[in-house]
Amino acid sequence: MYREEIKVLDCTIRDGGLINNYHFTDHFVDTVYRSACDAGVDIIELGKKLCESDEYTRVKYGRWNFCDDDDLKRVIDSHDSEYRPLVAVMYDVGRIDLSALQPRDQSPIDMIRTACYVADIDKGIDLAKRTKDLGYETTINIMAPSAAIESDLVEGLQQVNLADEVDYLYLVDSYGAFYSEQVTHYLNLYKTHAPNKELGFHAHNNQQLAFSNTQQAIIDGVNLLDATVNGIGRGAGNCNLELLLNFLKNPKFDVRPVYKAIQEVFVPLREEIEWGFNDIYGISGHLNQHPRAAMKQRSDEKNRDDCYDFFLESAAEIA
Amino acid sequence: MYREEIKVLDCTIRDGGLINNYHFTDHFVDTVYRSACDAGVDIIELGKKLCESDEYTRVKYGRWNFCDDDDLKRVIDSHDSEYRPLVAVMYDVGRIDLSALQPRDQSPIDMIRTACYVADIDKGIDLAKRTKDLGYETTINIMAPSAAIESDLVEGLQQVNLADEVDYLYLVDSYGAFYSEQVTHYLNLYKTHAPNKELGFHAHNNQQLAFSNTQQAIIDGVNLLDATVNGIGRGAGNCNLELLLNFLKNPKFDVRPVYKAIQEVFVPLREEIEWGFNDIYGISGHLNQHPRAAMKQRSDEKNRDDCYDFFLESAAEIA
Repeated sequence: MYREEIKVLDCTIRDGGLINNYHFTDHFVDTVYRSACDAGVDIIELGKKLCESDEYTRVKYGRWNFCDDDDLKRVIDSHDSEYRPLVAVMYDVGRIDLSALQPRDQSPIDMIRTACYVADIDKGIDLAKRTKDLGYETTINIMAPSAAIESDLVEGLQQVNLADEVDYLYLVDSYGAFYSEQVTHYLNLYKTHAPNKELGFHAHNNQQLAFSNTQQAIIDGVNLLDATVNGIGRGAGNCNLELLLNFLKNPKFDVRPVYKAIQEVFVPLREEIEWGFNDIYGISGHLNQHPRAAMKQRSDEKNRDDCYDFFLESAAEIA
Repeated sequence: MYREEIKVLDCTIRDGGLINNYHFTDHFVDTVYRSACDAGVDIIELGKKLCESDEYTRVKYGRWNFCDDDDLKRVIDSHDSEYRPLVAVMYDVGRIDLSALQPRDQSPIDMIRTACYVADIDKGIDLAKRTKDLGYETTINIMAPSAAIESDLVEGLQQVNLADEVDYLYLVDSYGAFYSEQVTHYLNLYKTHAPNKELGFHAHNNQQLAFSNTQQAIIDGVNLLDATVNGIGRGAGNCNLELLLNFLKNPKFDVRPVYKAIQEVFVPLREEIEWGFNDIYGISGHLNQHPRAAMKQRSDEKNRDDCYDFFLESAAEIA
């Protein structure tokens, strides 16, 4: 599949950090940044930009939950590269301090992605407007649309459509619940009610469908695609960047630096933390549930693989 | 997705046996059979039916490489069930002894699937005819069509189309190389050149696409679907039966017995043998290669995760 407009966003550090509270080593983050530069990835998201407080500290919550300018600059300077991807960070509605943000021309950040649930779309749009005023590229990532009442979602989409300051509108399969049919269904909704917006897609791999659903999004006209090296990410993880680059025929991409990064730093990390498909996440995705219960099950050393019990309990809870 | 005509074939033992030389315990095989009965699976394939010899013995190659009637009967009798799936076995062209096969009415077997490469389609059709004469349901599973010259494949399809004794014609993604586009492309070829045949689909999970490609096959009209419990199978394995049953809305299926079998016997087996997606199989699928080299790499304890090296070597070999 080749379409010139397609852009790939590597959210390895931001989504992967949800597993280990953003406690990546500098070497790990630098390696992911090098991979993104050398692979020709368009955008790299290096973390969240949340508000620090006495309780919520960098030491406890990891520096990539805060993405200070100095930390970002250090990463960018760690690799000598002619080509550099845009740098993105994520805003969570209600947990940010806009006054700490410099205008884009004085910042290492190029794009701010605002994640919000349907109920918070107004707040999300407000943040997008204010970050756009500072010169940033902006996105609204509506989380868990599969759990929203569709008429509420449609109203939110219509509001986003009217906000010129939102560059990209994201369909996010937060629960890994979509089959390709649902990807198409939701994208049709998004296209109908937010026709002015360029669309993005963010998958989760609960049912081994993150990669194939991303392909479906491409077929349905989406031009901004999220992926992570080796599929790292919360729970079942995300669309594997290396599989996606293999699929895309665009000559600007080179998959080899991604495999290099996997061999160097992801294989050792897999010994320490877990991500990716397993039976428990498959059930949680099938039942369109927040991955909370599945993550709890996986952290229970004794019962982590008891998928039959987990299926019965989960099905009973939603019955 | 609900379509009344859809049938599911559980090839857990036959494809899974390729990993451990068919050395499953009786308890394991009985559990898989019980799961198939209780889940309402249409057909269960319990192994290959190859020809025994002094060199090629049941002790060395496992009893499910040979599927003697007594072994099959023992499994069938192990579970008291009102509903019973049809029992299938696989024939490999050139490695069978037809004289050892009883007519269907004196045999525990209902279906014989003949696997052959494009070059051996004549021999495959001959076997299908002779097994049909004995009363069996028959399939031709053309292996590795992605590696065949398309005009040769088309000629083979036309021959199969003329053979009334072939009940089902299978599209097999032996190398796990297909994206959904290729599934559709090949199925269009099969439908054009073998319009008389009911079609089957057999996936491999090299690129995390076995399940999604099986969905694509359904969308494209295929009514006989292969899957294995927990995705067990050679290399990256197959389409996960439990994911497929979750997807299919047909009320005749019940996924719970499959999860029960996973929890009871597959979780322990995963400690002993490996199957499923990993980086090495992803590369082999992407490059449309026989999984031989990937399996060799995975069996090399020291370098099994060296995906960057494997990518460079594999790409160089086909350059």
